[in-house]
Amino acid sequence: MTVIFSDILAANQRIRPYARVTPLLEDPTLNAQLGGRLLIKAEGLQVRGSFKIRGAANAMLARLEEARAHGVVAFSSGNHAQAIAYMGMVLGIRSTIVVPSDAPAGKLARVVEDGATLITYDRVNESREAIGAKIAAETGAIMIKPFDDELVIAGQGTLAVEAIAQAGTMGARIDRFVVCASGGGLAAGISVAAQTMLPNCAITTAEPSGHDDMAQSLASGVLVTNPPGMRSFQDALLTATAGDITFPLLQKAKATGVSVSDQDAMMAMKTAWQRLGLVLEPGGAAALAAVLAGKVALNGQTVCVTASGSNADAEIFAKAIL
Amino acid sequence: MTVIFSDILAANQRIRPYARVTPLLEDPTLNAQLGGRLLIKAEGLQVRGSFKIRGAANAMLARLEEARAHGVVAFSSGNHAQAIAYMGMVLGIRSTIVVPSDAPAGKLARVVEDGATLITYDRVNESREAIGAKIAAETGAIMIKPFDDELVIAGQGTLAVEAIAQAGTMGARIDRFVVCASGGGLAAGISVAAQTMLPNCAITTAEPSGHDDMAQSLASGVLVTNPPGMRSFQDALLTATAGDITFPLLQKAKATGVSVSDQDAMMAMKTAWQRLGLVLEPGGAAALAAVLAGKVALNGQTVCVTASGSNADAEIFAKAIL
Repeated sequence: MTVIFSDILAANQRIRPYARVTPLLEDPTLNAQLGGRLLIKAEGLQVRGSFKIRGAANAMLARLEEARAHGVVAFSSGNHAQAIAYMGMVLGIRSTIVVPSDAPAGKLARVVEDGATLITYDRVNESREAIGAKIAAETGAIMIKPFDDELVIAGQGTLAVEAIAQAGTMGARIDRFVVCASGGGLAAGISVAAQTMLPNCAITTAEPSGHDDMAQSLASGVLVTNPPGMRSFQDALLTATAGDITFPLLQKAKATGVSVSDQDAMMAMKTAWQRLGLVLEPGGAAALAAVLAGKVALNGQTVCVTASGSNADAEIFAKAIL
Repeated sequence: MTVIFSDILAANQRIRPYARVTPLLEDPTLNAQLGGRLLIKAEGLQVRGSFKIRGAANAMLARLEEARAHGVVAFSSGNHAQAIAYMGMVLGIRSTIVVPSDAPAGKLARVVEDGATLITYDRVNESREAIGAKIAAETGAIMIKPFDDELVIAGQGTLAVEAIAQAGTMGARIDRFVVCASGGGLAAGISVAAQTMLPNCAITTAEPSGHDDMAQSLASGVLVTNPPGMRSFQDALLTATAGDITFPLLQKAKATGVSVSDQDAMMAMKTAWQRLGLVLEPGGAAALAAVLAGKVALNGQTVCVTASGSNADAEIFAKAIL
């Protein structure tokens, strides 16, 4: 149960017709202010607004016949759900999304539009994992977990293959990736690619303050779980704990973690909008916020941050930029 | 005094280290709704937030020694000014920007940050062209006009070279460009490239309703000037009349023009934000608005719209997406 570089290369080949090569942006003024090169991987411009399409596409394409015969099931009310529903539409695969009954309808509109079936559950009394597993057992549908899945991790790792190549054409070599982290699927995938392609490249995870289970887990060497009921404005980054596959991969890469306040995330959203014309959702701004708020210093190095998604609520986005 | 395809190829080579290759985006849901393929050239992600860097870079690089010796001068309080100031900073060229004394400071902050010298004039009693010409005569500075300049037009035309190549890798052939138009520099440059690369490709300009001098000029065959004092929410598209170089080029390409209301532009800004995570400024939304509002029908064809810029005021952008 792990992921190696060849899995990422296979994923990169598989997903290419479906996932976009997103821009790697930099701004000379920001570079001068920060004292290094800051490269921003603009995954908010990815299909359906986040990097999640990479993992979803890889997981579905790798088992295409089975998925077409029996469908797929996922539990998520966020970007993973959007990616699964979209790929289901494009590939002709029935998708079922298990969502809490109190999930905001707006967040799910596009999932429904893309043809997914929604199954709601009671967040307090029911387990989404159990409901998902039951559907999988009854229908033969493939369960695609949001992060602790080898194919999903390998798919997310394609971001690094792309970014490292793009940096090369810009005359840059990435010294550190700073990655928005929740369950750690993206960070783990990037760490596997970076360890092969750029052996001295460091990996830093960025999480919401008060919800930094990953940073604590990496520092202590054991999986730390966030206290239940914690909320954050950075709503895409609220997984309670890292995964059984993602965490060892990040440990192996000697990853470290930092956390950013909601205020830091708001400021990063504003800066990305003003300086680069980029839309970031709060959770997708954590890595950029970590650099802008000085949690990760550039020190003359080249740092690549994942701008992971753009699916922000209009009210929240307006508040950030005004 | 004209522009030919080889001028655009020369520009494309010249500007490549400075201008980004911006993404060409599409959304299968929008395609299905519109009945064709809609390709969106996301120039809001261009350096300093608009396509203007293409023309500015070409004009400055083509006369680099002279520009370094004597500086450049431009009159603009918008995206052309930002592009000139940025390229001045990057290339080590003194830039002077002639702006109306009542121009909003916010719009000029980045120009000043990039090291340009501002010269203000009285919009009512003074002529910016005369002031610019005087500075050029006194200092030897090169005047770079916003659109009616062969090198600027050739630079803007590189957008089409890029978009046509990108469309090819997406299995598409562009049947029509719809281009946000003010003085017509971008539209003229695109028309020259398209006439060589895709001989049957149509060119449509998109302007604000009530300010559609280009559409009227193209329809009547003579240069029409907008009545003085007209304003529009689409503030990047308020040039009073097309240029002596741009207009004949667009006539030769048998271009036609459409106009869109401010309401159409607002709706296009919202759709681009929701569906693609893209920031558009009002004037940069005119071409997309023309397609979404049905002013240009797809009819099974592939249509490329220029999403020309992202330098929107925060208040206006918030209003559009809420």
